[in-house]
Amino acid sequence: MTPSRHDIEAAAARIAPHIRRTPVMRMGGGDLGLGMDLILKLELLQATGSFKPRGAFNRMLSATLPAAGVATASGGNHGAAVAYAARALGVKAEVFCPTATPAAKTDRIEGYGAVLHRIGAAYDEARIASEARAAETGALIVHAYDQPEVLAGQGTVGRELSQDAPEATHVLVATGGGGLIGGIAAWYAGTGTQVISVEPEGCPTLATALKEGRPVPCPVGGLASDSLGARQVGALMFEVARHHVAEAVLVTDEAIRETQRRIWQALRLIAEPGGAAAMAALVSGAWVPPAGARVAVVVCGSNADPAKVV
Amino acid sequence: MTPSRHDIEAAAARIAPHIRRTPVMRMGGGDLGLGMDLILKLELLQATGSFKPRGAFNRMLSATLPAAGVATASGGNHGAAVAYAARALGVKAEVFCPTATPAAKTDRIEGYGAVLHRIGAAYDEARIASEARAAETGALIVHAYDQPEVLAGQGTVGRELSQDAPEATHVLVATGGGGLIGGIAAWYAGTGTQVISVEPEGCPTLATALKEGRPVPCPVGGLASDSLGARQVGALMFEVARHHVAEAVLVTDEAIRETQRRIWQALRLIAEPGGAAAMAALVSGAWVPPAGARVAVVVCGSNADPAKVV
Repeated sequence: MTPSRHDIEAAAARIAPHIRRTPVMRMGGGDLGLGMDLILKLELLQATGSFKPRGAFNRMLSATLPAAGVATASGGNHGAAVAYAARALGVKAEVFCPTATPAAKTDRIEGYGAVLHRIGAAYDEARIASEARAAETGALIVHAYDQPEVLAGQGTVGRELSQDAPEATHVLVATGGGGLIGGIAAWYAGTGTQVISVEPEGCPTLATALKEGRPVPCPVGGLASDSLGARQVGALMFEVARHHVAEAVLVTDEAIRETQRRIWQALRLIAEPGGAAAMAALVSGAWVPPAGARVAVVVCGSNADPAKVV
Repeated sequence: MTPSRHDIEAAAARIAPHIRRTPVMRMGGGDLGLGMDLILKLELLQATGSFKPRGAFNRMLSATLPAAGVATASGGNHGAAVAYAARALGVKAEVFCPTATPAAKTDRIEGYGAVLHRIGAAYDEARIASEARAAETGALIVHAYDQPEVLAGQGTVGRELSQDAPEATHVLVATGGGGLIGGIAAWYAGTGTQVISVEPEGCPTLATALKEGRPVPCPVGGLASDSLGARQVGALMFEVARHHVAEAVLVTDEAIRETQRRIWQALRLIAEPGGAAAMAALVSGAWVPPAGARVAVVVCGSNADPAKVV
């Protein structure tokens, strides 16, 4: 069930009319307070403000969409992506979010015309509610991370990055449920480019799973929990990660917050906590590149209130 | 004195170690409320938050820098760029800004270690003060727009855009003193790609100059005057513009404000008023592309308080 390069190529062709090919930018790290050059994959410029439309469109364009439309659960970004895709494809969407999802995300979900339900303290409760609702209405479930089409869709980030920055030796990616890094690691599998997972200490889903040898429930907390707050990594991504993720490092909320500030100062970009997490591994020194590394960082989400960033 | 392609190529080579090659992104215009595809040159991701380091570095790297360092006058972005370049090249900088320059810009100037002087209500008074100071100290003047090296440096935006988006038939650029559009129009001269000037109604320097046949003093006012508030266009750029700028259109402050909102909503980017002005010509309909046009927009500055944008 690991997506192949062929699956990811097919996803790229399928979703191309609907998503943006986000840019790669190279920069000296000095303006970020780092002593290395960086390659940035600016996926936060994607439609809806995160990478999530890639997987959502790929799932929806691979299925026959029922009259009841689609249902999903989300910390917010995936819900916004499903709402956006549903509007583009002319179907109804119901999105279940935990009560803590910030307005920057729920405004998008409702703005794109989906029905929003707020339920539970964390993603997992919203997921259970969304599945019950889909069973009732016949809606198609578009899972936030643990479906093959979703993984293949997110893998198109890796495909673009490898084309636009073939020199990258290491790619830093934030992990929540693991759809993004699962797709990217599947793309890079066997290429020699190492994919590094970065998670907040408050939601260490992949680091814990790799230690235990299987996905296990973890605490969900901290600054980035609205985007990285799955209770455990997906089964599909775990099969990819155990073979193709080189390392799983953890960062503090303080490091994420400081990284958000530096990204604003050096780039005038608003990165949400989950979007800044990967770079926080460099800012904090939680991950130190080996000599000669050409480091790429996926900056993957921008749905935050600027007043909490600047 | 019009920069040649050779001058711009030489500038590109000279400044390459110091500036970022900013990305081009293509997107459907629907998310911006526009009925056309767009090519965006995301120059607001440049170091210091505007295109200005290109010209500043080219001027400073083309000269022998005196012990007294450099002096300049600026609405803010050019001053920040000169401060940044002076720090990188290890010389002193004095920057003269009008009192209305916002903190988003003066913070950068002082943050990069330059001496900031606030003087006068508009750019022109600051310019006179900077020239008096340079005469006294022997500092090198780095003009905000009206020097050949500055024009050639800003022209590197056109060079990159033409390489990364060769399909562009029209390029929309905001005009203040005219350094950016002068450089870009010099690059595109004779290629068939049309360069369109966009100015706020409150500072119509190029539209007025083209009508009068020479640069003439204009009123300076409105939302974007901290970046587009030169009293008149430069003599050097005017020689380029009279031959190589296809059209000069005006936009209202309301259109700029609305465009800033749409850029935030669709791209999660903070564009300052001067940075949003070029796209405002499309949003307002002040400029309507001909059938078949492939429109590129230079989004050129991001030094604004997000609270005034979102």
